[in-house]
Amino acid sequence: MTILFYDLVGHDAQRPFSPHCWKTKMALAHKGLDATKVPTRFLEVPKVEGGVSKTVPVIRDGDRVVVDSFAIALYLDEAYPERPTLFSGEGGKAMARFIERWSQLTIHPYIATVALTDLNAMQDETNAVYFRENREQRYGKRLEEVVAGRDAGLAGFRASLEPLRSMFSYQPFIGGEAPLFADYIVFGALQWARVASPYRLLDESDSVSQWFERCLDLYDGIGRQVAAAA
Amino acid sequence: MTILFYDLVGHDAQRPFSPHCWKTKMALAHKGLDATKVPTRFLEVPKVEGGVSKTVPVIRDGDRVVVDSFAIALYLDEAYPERPTLFSGEGGKAMARFIERWSQLTIHPYIATVALTDLNAMQDETNAVYFRENREQRYGKRLEEVVAGRDAGLAGFRASLEPLRSMFSYQPFIGGEAPLFADYIVFGALQWARVASPYRLLDESDSVSQWFERCLDLYDGIGRQVAAAA
Repeated sequence: MTILFYDLVGHDAQRPFSPHCWKTKMALAHKGLDATKVPTRFLEVPKVEGGVSKTVPVIRDGDRVVVDSFAIALYLDEAYPERPTLFSGEGGKAMARFIERWSQLTIHPYIATVALTDLNAMQDETNAVYFRENREQRYGKRLEEVVAGRDAGLAGFRASLEPLRSMFSYQPFIGGEAPLFADYIVFGALQWARVASPYRLLDESDSVSQWFERCLDLYDGIGRQVAAAA
Repeated sequence: MTILFYDLVGHDAQRPFSPHCWKTKMALAHKGLDATKVPTRFLEVPKVEGGVSKTVPVIRDGDRVVVDSFAIALYLDEAYPERPTLFSGEGGKAMARFIERWSQLTIHPYIATVALTDLNAMQDETNAVYFRENREQRYGKRLEEVVAGRDAGLAGFRASLEPLRSMFSYQPFIGGEAPLFADYIVFGALQWARVASPYRLLDESDSVSQWFERCLDLYDGIGRQVAAAA
């Protein structure tokens, strides 16, 4: 019995875009676990597994339902200890949490700014209405006004990645010589941008961009199976 | 034979202030290793162990000389595997590097801004001349001009700690339930500020401040053995 994986999609079920679902997709691939994807639109999320969560990813593995990408990664490492570890020790678990908070607070807000109108355009009609209302309430302005600030924010965003860039002078992955869940945390954010928006976040010469390309190559290139937005 | 630990001091050898040396001091305490401190002024650093490094900390453990706080922590974990680990696994080693780069690029520049004139005042006469010349060349302005910007930068500095603050809603230490070297990396930066300058970086109600107090309590309060600057 394979794992059920509720994955956020828009009108095209072949273009999953959620950063948090991408973290889970990479984590499942890292563990070598098969999963059956259940394409899920925003408005279907509250019905997933009887309303267990307001957000996806959610997985069902046999009798066990797990909510939240970090909790899912911890669960997978516990449930499948014989497969490659996602954290490589207790220290890795603890520090991956810092990296998650850093990514969420440093990278996510800017990418949302970049991609909001593109994300809106990816939704079907009903979900687009929901998405616009929900996000315009959150930001207190129209999506178009939020996105209008993206050029002004680009240099600051690139500068905010400096700790990552500096780290890549020591090691090829956040996890060290090989990727761990911490890599997928940051990958998920950049893949969200790649799938949703043609806006150019990074220069090709940027070591962050080069690391992202290495992540796209992982597991037979599952990250590339969804083409970049054009 | 105890470990020799070259520790940066000013005119008062009892008030070591270097953030990187504090990382090493906490790492030695964490491992339960005795060390003989060699108080070292800025101008003595190039002579340490025959000129092995431009910076301290440097340690000598028997025949082995190790330079750089991160390398020292890695060495101590390798050389004394039967004592409490500083990294708790390979993932912890890799991600501690990210935390080091984040601390160095996010926390250090602002604390330097806060403390430059105080640090200058801590040096003896000859070293104060060196310190002022060296740092004024680095900043391209007088120390007093750099420090004049500290009030304007305070809110931004506090905001930059948000990933740490957010992480503390999950766990009491960067290392998880107990401290690891990653904690000492950030502790070293804040202890540098505490020892050098009375300037108030954090509100007491801040979870970062509360974590810092927990770190000051560790190992019979070795962090508190040097009083806060007044």
